[in-house]
Amino acid sequence: MSHNTFGHLFRVTTWGESHGAALGCVVDGCPPGIRFTLAEIQAELDKRRPGQSRFVTQRREADEVKVLSGFVMDDDGETMITTGTPVSMMIENTDQRSKDYGEIARQYRPGHADYTYDTKYGIRDYRGGGRSSARETAARVAAGALARKIVPGLSVRGALVAMGDKTIDRANWNWGFIGDAENPFFTPDPASVAIFSDYLDGIRKAGSSVGALIEIVAEGVPAGLGAPVYAKLDQDIASNLMSINAVKGVEIGDGFETARMTGEENADEMRMGNDGKPFFMSNHAGGILGGISTGQPVVSRFAVKPTSSILTPRRSVDVDGNDVDIRTKGRHDPCVGIRAVPIGEAMVACAIADHYLRHRGQTGRIA
Amino acid sequence: MSHNTFGHLFRVTTWGESHGAALGCVVDGCPPGIRFTLAEIQAELDKRRPGQSRFVTQRREADEVKVLSGFVMDDDGETMITTGTPVSMMIENTDQRSKDYGEIARQYRPGHADYTYDTKYGIRDYRGGGRSSARETAARVAAGALARKIVPGLSVRGALVAMGDKTIDRANWNWGFIGDAENPFFTPDPASVAIFSDYLDGIRKAGSSVGALIEIVAEGVPAGLGAPVYAKLDQDIASNLMSINAVKGVEIGDGFETARMTGEENADEMRMGNDGKPFFMSNHAGGILGGISTGQPVVSRFAVKPTSSILTPRRSVDVDGNDVDIRTKGRHDPCVGIRAVPIGEAMVACAIADHYLRHRGQTGRIA
Amino acid sequence: MSHNTFGHLFRVTTWGESHGAALGCVVDGCPPGIRFTLAEIQAELDKRRPGQSRFVTQRREADEVKVLSGFVMDDDGETMITTGTPVSMMIENTDQRSKDYGEIARQYRPGHADYTYDTKYGIRDYRGGGRSSARETAARVAAGALARKIVPGLSVRGALVAMGDKTIDRANWNWGFIGDAENPFFTPDPASVAIFSDYLDGIRKAGSSVGALIEIVAEGVPAGLGAPVYAKLDQDIASNLMSINAVKGVEIGDGFETARMTGEENADEMRMGNDGKPFFMSNHAGGILGGISTGQPVVSRFAVKPTSSILTPRRSVDVDGNDVDIRTKGRHDPCVGIRAVPIGEAMVACAIADHYLRHRGQTGRIA
Amino acid sequence: MSHNTFGHLFRVTTWGESHGAALGCVVDGCPPGIRFTLAEIQAELDKRRPGQSRFVTQRREADEVKVLSGFVMDDDGETMITTGTPVSMMIENTDQRSKDYGEIARQYRPGHADYTYDTKYGIRDYRGGGRSSARETAARVAAGALARKIVPGLSVRGALVAMGDKTIDRANWNWGFIGDAENPFFTPDPASVAIFSDYLDGIRKAGSSVGALIEIVAEGVPAGLGAPVYAKLDQDIASNLMSINAVKGVEIGDGFETARMTGEENADEMRMGNDGKPFFMSNHAGGILGGISTGQPVVSRFAVKPTSSILTPRRSVDVDGNDVDIRTKGRHDPCVGIRAVPIGEAMVACAIADHYLRHRGQTGRIA
Repeated sequence: MSHNTFGHLFRVTTWGESHGAALGCVVDGCPPGIRFTLAEIQAELDKRRPGQSRFVTQRREADEVKVLSGFVMDDDGETMITTGTPVSMMIENTDQRSKDYGEIARQYRPGHADYTYDTKYGIRDYRGGGRSSARETAARVAAGALARKIVPGLSVRGALVAMGDKTIDRANWNWGFIGDAENPFFTPDPASVAIFSDYLDGIRKAGSSVGALIEIVAEGVPAGLGAPVYAKLDQDIASNLMSINAVKGVEIGDGFETARMTGEENADEMRMGNDGKPFFMSNHAGGILGGISTGQPVVSRFAVKPTSSILTPRRSVDVDGNDVDIRTKGRHDPCVGIRAVPIGEAMVACAIADHYLRHRGQTGRIA
Repeated sequence: MSHNTFGHLFRVTTWGESHGAALGCVVDGCPPGIRFTLAEIQAELDKRRPGQSRFVTQRREADEVKVLSGFVMDDDGETMITTGTPVSMMIENTDQRSKDYGEIARQYRPGHADYTYDTKYGIRDYRGGGRSSARETAARVAAGALARKIVPGLSVRGALVAMGDKTIDRANWNWGFIGDAENPFFTPDPASVAIFSDYLDGIRKAGSSVGALIEIVAEGVPAGLGAPVYAKLDQDIASNLMSINAVKGVEIGDGFETARMTGEENADEMRMGNDGKPFFMSNHAGGILGGISTGQPVVSRFAVKPTSSILTPRRSVDVDGNDVDIRTKGRHDPCVGIRAVPIGEAMVACAIADHYLRHRGQTGRIA
Repeated sequence: MSHNTFGHLFRVTTWGESHGAALGCVVDGCPPGIRFTLAEIQAELDKRRPGQSRFVTQRREADEVKVLSGFVMDDDGETMITTGTPVSMMIENTDQRSKDYGEIARQYRPGHADYTYDTKYGIRDYRGGGRSSARETAARVAAGALARKIVPGLSVRGALVAMGDKTIDRANWNWGFIGDAENPFFTPDPASVAIFSDYLDGIRKAGSSVGALIEIVAEGVPAGLGAPVYAKLDQDIASNLMSINAVKGVEIGDGFETARMTGEENADEMRMGNDGKPFFMSNHAGGILGGISTGQPVVSRFAVKPTSSILTPRRSVDVDGNDVDIRTKGRHDPCVGIRAVPIGEAMVACAIADHYLRHRGQTGRIA
Repeated sequence: MSHNTFGHLFRVTTWGESHGAALGCVVDGCPPGIRFTLAEIQAELDKRRPGQSRFVTQRREADEVKVLSGFVMDDDGETMITTGTPVSMMIENTDQRSKDYGEIARQYRPGHADYTYDTKYGIRDYRGGGRSSARETAARVAAGALARKIVPGLSVRGALVAMGDKTIDRANWNWGFIGDAENPFFTPDPASVAIFSDYLDGIRKAGSSVGALIEIVAEGVPAGLGAPVYAKLDQDIASNLMSINAVKGVEIGDGFETARMTGEENADEMRMGNDGKPFFMSNHAGGILGGISTGQPVVSRFAVKPTSSILTPRRSVDVDGNDVDIRTKGRHDPCVGIRAVPIGEAMVACAIADHYLRHRGQTGRIA
């Protein structure tokens, strides 16, 4: 049992607060012989780094990752090869503006964990949200960069598909557009950039914030991962995604829409392909049946609530039991859902890597 | 690690298939001194028992639970008191109609786990869905009946809030109506019974099926349960609910709706109460902030897909690689979501009981 | 986490007390396709069954095991094939003499867990030792019978090598003699039978008891099982053996003797064999180096304390705080170490099976 | 499940190799509000630091620990207070002499894990023993320093009680002598220093090595910690101790001696004390009955094999399948058991802290 670990055979433990010396993760159970470079890990981290557009927090963190253990360097001096021992990765906190936390230290910001932390622990590191800081997710992304390498041929990609009441047009879906310099939103729909920009500029200037909907698609997931009951692949993906800050809902495949569907609409029919292998004619199930992957793309979606830090004063109380009105100043993302895209990818990749190893362990049916 | 266990300090392992000798669960970690009666456990099981209305499967199972270990009998000969050792509960399978499984044994039913089981394990108990049978959930309900007793003052209640395209009127919400003899749907809205009845009769007669939306409300949850990162209370509730058969989506509080909200709309403001304690003025968060309970009702919702077994022929393949058309005869629930209500309650109760013990263990801040 | 489970991928949960309705185990994570018969499981159980000679308790239990889940029956109607789902096994308690537990219920027997149970739980099932009954080990032996089948070519055999101050002559070691009808002691030394018989008859007639030393040898363990630090194969064997009732010490290979040895004496030298494979010239390490199996026999040994139930009065206290003198009547083993032999075998087999699956999961280096 | 973690509620994950950038640990589950100073942690580490006498390796490591997360600094600027989030501690590797590992890289040193690493992982960090380096134990000692603070009034002390064929005189036992500047052996017997010195000088000059026996005594352990079956306190102590490098045997209380004892000799009798509380008249059981602590001192002992690195040539093979003779030069401890004393203390402290939290979680019977 652990409060700060996820996964079983591919097992990630993260540590660190926003304003301490550093944060990081220990990846235990990584198979030996996995080849990676520091640049690859860093590239994943850079996706979620703050300060890259006016739509995300202007806090500037280099977010430079160090790999402290668990590898030998290949002769090229660049490729690291895992040895099967724990891979410890660390990111030092460099931008810790000294400031007066006086008010935050004593007030419970609505929508934040301030009140619940104090209730649970009787003590709280109020600087930057402590353990609940979005910075903690850097450790997940680093772990996810390794996880992507475990399953041969695996691809895990994410996209922002809605922001507030604006939704992408799926007809325009273009994975290639994500990562484009003109795309600060991880949207797969080029036509949505102008719409989201205008919308979010309005939100940002009003000192407000807005929620978002993210979709993660994993391709190359072999059939057979997961288990029928309490190690369902969808269950562990849901658990991993729900563990991301501000996430309030998770769904697989057609998700909540299935509550409104009939059995005929929901069934993914099958036929034999010309290659002599069965194939599915649709993917309402999101690539998972009975908790076990079908070999189709594994599709999940999660809802991120609006950033709780807003300029509009909200009513609250302080630690001394006084009513207070709180206006959260500072450098905040108007839509924290944007930077949740690479985090969602990482969490899905970790779930799949773990189940790949578990499946291999129990059944021996994959190499 | 385990494929058939959930929870950590309140830990439930279930076993058994639909058509074997029996199924059951082992509850490990139950505190000593918990008092319960067999009748209480049975009452929970009876809620999800088949054959109680024309809207659920006509398969008849007594579903009689036996408690095999982990208790001493009080002098009254009726009250069982837990001793802190594992509580093993068993339900024998009594209605195992012998029938010819010839076709089912060799065909992959769309929407079922047949294909994925064979892919994963290379072997499959095709009788009655094997481990994926809805009967497995009886063991969860039995465990949940114990879980309800762990946290003093805890109440966990569930309701069906939508079926297909029909939705209850929340203005009519009446917890007392659930359990009413005239209410075969676990709906809290008396006015919805006629609507759901007509709708589901149509579905049933057409040999079709439909999905549903279930809401679980836990009251009396002390503030402080959960943890900031990977032992979030909402995460474990989501994981537990997603582990129920046919569940494709889970949300907490305002859930997916938060993706469309602004920070102002989403904030749950606080004020000091006349009793000198802080209170929340709304509950968009569903009783959980930063992964930790606030003391408000913990509200979760999950989507159940339509029963996959329908009379309309669907295209599929068989184990020999032939195209086949499958029409699933037999005694099936037209809306499996109905009987998911007590199962959802049990899974939420188990998550809360586990976190109660974990919180007590780590912090010692509750008795 | 669990209080009643051991193993990770091959995971055993046991439940049940001496005097309840039944006891049993759930084996989770057993690979699919393992073939076994009920007779094989029963044969292992029969080894530890009471009542087989005058040297073990005369309590008579059929100890008949039922397999309730996790298999399909092969066409021969006898061979069971695991499906990868949990294997639940149960043994009903049949010989529960009704008797007056008045004194035992209120007195703390020296050497027993009576006092610690009450201190821990505040409640205690005093009948037959409750959860600490030697009967609990029947569940382990049943699980071990399955575990033996996981690793191809594995053989796990145990022997009693000392009883009180009597020791076998290792020069006479004959595995074939164990199981012989003339051998009530699991001794590998035929010459020791007369010695042990005389010795133990004296102990038994005096109402006394005596300790024993057991050795377990596992052959056919592939090299590579275990891990360098906290999943050492020797660590998990030690943990499993120490979990057996009355065990007070565990050692691997030369064990405690190594504290007295020099580096030269302790080193297991290697050479290349004629078959082109390296071989070890000795096995002081007991088949494990750095926590990982070498491919040599894995040798462990454990000490079993004398049975605490003796006829000689011992000083103690009762639950009301009175000084009392206790004389434990009833049917007890004068040397509980004898029946510990098959239990030790089972626990070692379970540890090896678990590590075999873990090794396959992480590295994929065995099929 | 994890290969590099131990404990459940007080959970320690270690990472790092001898010759990488750093090594460390993450302590998850530490209760909030535990007060400690860096100096206290460092003091524990200094106990096991190399280079302090001619009897331990002359490798010089500052072994300076940094605490990276999980605390807030008290106003005194010195006292750290845990917040309940993970405590990450790191020790940088400073003395990494660059040297030619050519031979070691390709040869399997007898008694080392070289061969088993290669067999398991197919890859190996041969520098300094990689993950099996004694340096890994620094992380355990750091975690143990925190563990000591969890249980109010707990004291965990260790002593070397035998080295090779030399044994202390228990009549001279003086805890105060351990830590004395004139005592390089952690022996509690002042008279033994001269004996051990002469003996070990001979061993050292011969390029040989020798084993040792260590005893750990934990006082102030409340009654009630542990569980009857697979979470026995003695089992987890045994597991923790056996996970230390070079440990080949573990025993509790009278340990292996109990195999030779009768029930009369082994029984710890009880009487009511003048304070109205029961007390034990002896402690053969080592403070644990039925897996649960009695309130007496918890006594464990472990055997450390002789250091495998010796100057006398030993026969072995290399990775290419050639017979080779190996003479291990370099800075090695002639008796690695000496520095095992603080490590053993740490591992016992961690086991007790974990069980304290688990007991509180399940039963709520301690504050």
